[in-house]
Amino acid sequence: MGEATAVETGVVTAALLVIGDEILSGRTKDKNIGYIAEYLTAIGVDLTEVRVVSDDEAAIIDALNALRQRYTYVFTTGGIGPTHDDITADCVAKAFGVPIHEDPRAIARLLERIKPEDLNEARRRMARIPEGADLVDNPVSKAPGFWIGNVIVMAGVPTIMQAMLDSVAPKLATGRVMLSETIRAECKEGDVAGPLRAIAERYPDVMIGSYPFNDETGFKTNLVLRSREASRLAVATAAVRDMLTSLNAARS
Amino acid sequence: MGEATAVETGVVTAALLVIGDEILSGRTKDKNIGYIAEYLTAIGVDLTEVRVVSDDEAAIIDALNALRQRYTYVFTTGGIGPTHDDITADCVAKAFGVPIHEDPRAIARLLERIKPEDLNEARRRMARIPEGADLVDNPVSKAPGFWIGNVIVMAGVPTIMQAMLDSVAPKLATGRVMLSETIRAECKEGDVAGPLRAIAERYPDVMIGSYPFNDETGFKTNLVLRSREASRLAVATAAVRDMLTSLNAARS
Repeated sequence: MGEATAVETGVVTAALLVIGDEILSGRTKDKNIGYIAEYLTAIGVDLTEVRVVSDDEAAIIDALNALRQRYTYVFTTGGIGPTHDDITADCVAKAFGVPIHEDPRAIARLLERIKPEDLNEARRRMARIPEGADLVDNPVSKAPGFWIGNVIVMAGVPTIMQAMLDSVAPKLATGRVMLSETIRAECKEGDVAGPLRAIAERYPDVMIGSYPFNDETGFKTNLVLRSREASRLAVATAAVRDMLTSLNAARS
Repeated sequence: MGEATAVETGVVTAALLVIGDEILSGRTKDKNIGYIAEYLTAIGVDLTEVRVVSDDEAAIIDALNALRQRYTYVFTTGGIGPTHDDITADCVAKAFGVPIHEDPRAIARLLERIKPEDLNEARRRMARIPEGADLVDNPVSKAPGFWIGNVIVMAGVPTIMQAMLDSVAPKLATGRVMLSETIRAECKEGDVAGPLRAIAERYPDVMIGSYPFNDETGFKTNLVLRSREASRLAVATAAVRDMLTSLNAARS
């Protein structure tokens, strides 16, 4: 992986590591996975795996080390606040085998928002940054995220995470954007599956997915075609539309 | 792991494996993680890890084999429909090293809903079940899930997944339910972090989490205490309430 490979193949991959007991207990419903997935897809980074782990040092370090070797980038959300259960920064330092210190650059950012007399020991914890990391801007509440190696550490609060992603995005290596077309089929998945498989075999370079859903009129199917090549996407999409027209004619 | 350990320790763990390109592309926003997390917590099963992987055989098999060795149960969602991209059943069979066949019990269930003349080759795929698996009821659309070893395979469509979970839940080994109390602190996380850490150190058997959020009045904090022991939860909760009262008195 890494940027050299990404440039050669036009493919940049990413994993997301969501850190937090509150997601696993169901108390907080995650809003970051879907947001990050859509955001990265739009800029040409393929989100390839997501993991959610608890606020547990071994679980976080194991997941970080597995993911950072496998993907171009690893994004994390959660666990960078001032309380005792915020252990992400320490875990990242341990995963990389580097020391962690209170970072004067991070203290300066905190002081843009916090009065010196309110900068207590707990808040100073938010300035603990692994050695060698760059800071990630937080225009919402100042306490920064950071970027070390291919790991980008962000807050869990959605408004802050979104602002951090905006500040990181221009610096990411990106690949060719995955284009997609969605076609709603007014039939059940089982009615369209046979002819759809034939098209998928004819266009192996276009990814074709089939997603059933039910609304007030019963079960229907969304067909989603994806490719980085506009021309290939167009011919495969035309083939699917023709197939649906024939299918409807045969059924009516 | 396994049921014997669960009974001894009172702890039953689970992982969830979400299978599907559509979640990773952001096209579909997952609704199953939060639902399953809340459901399992309520019945005394600790959801300890979640992974989301694409419709890729190696990714699914690797994740299944990692998770099923680590947790009491592994639940999967997605990839059991009739189309070419539905490969979950085959991947589960490969992960367990067992053959997979069209299962007469599953065909019988499909025929409860589908006319024999509509039971085409694609729909028959939904009756492919790994050898040795039990079927999981699907009262919504009949096509069953299945349960093999400690792996429970469910549909991705939320209404169907929820019905499958209802039919599986009474058969699960469950541990002692994790009890929780949530206290809303009318202050920023950094104001409460110091005294909260002292309480967390005094009650190491109670898990104490701190979750900042912002509403129209600014940043506030939810404090969540969790324990399987009602009496321990009660004393730690009282300690947090007392601490917040002192903090408010000092600030006003």
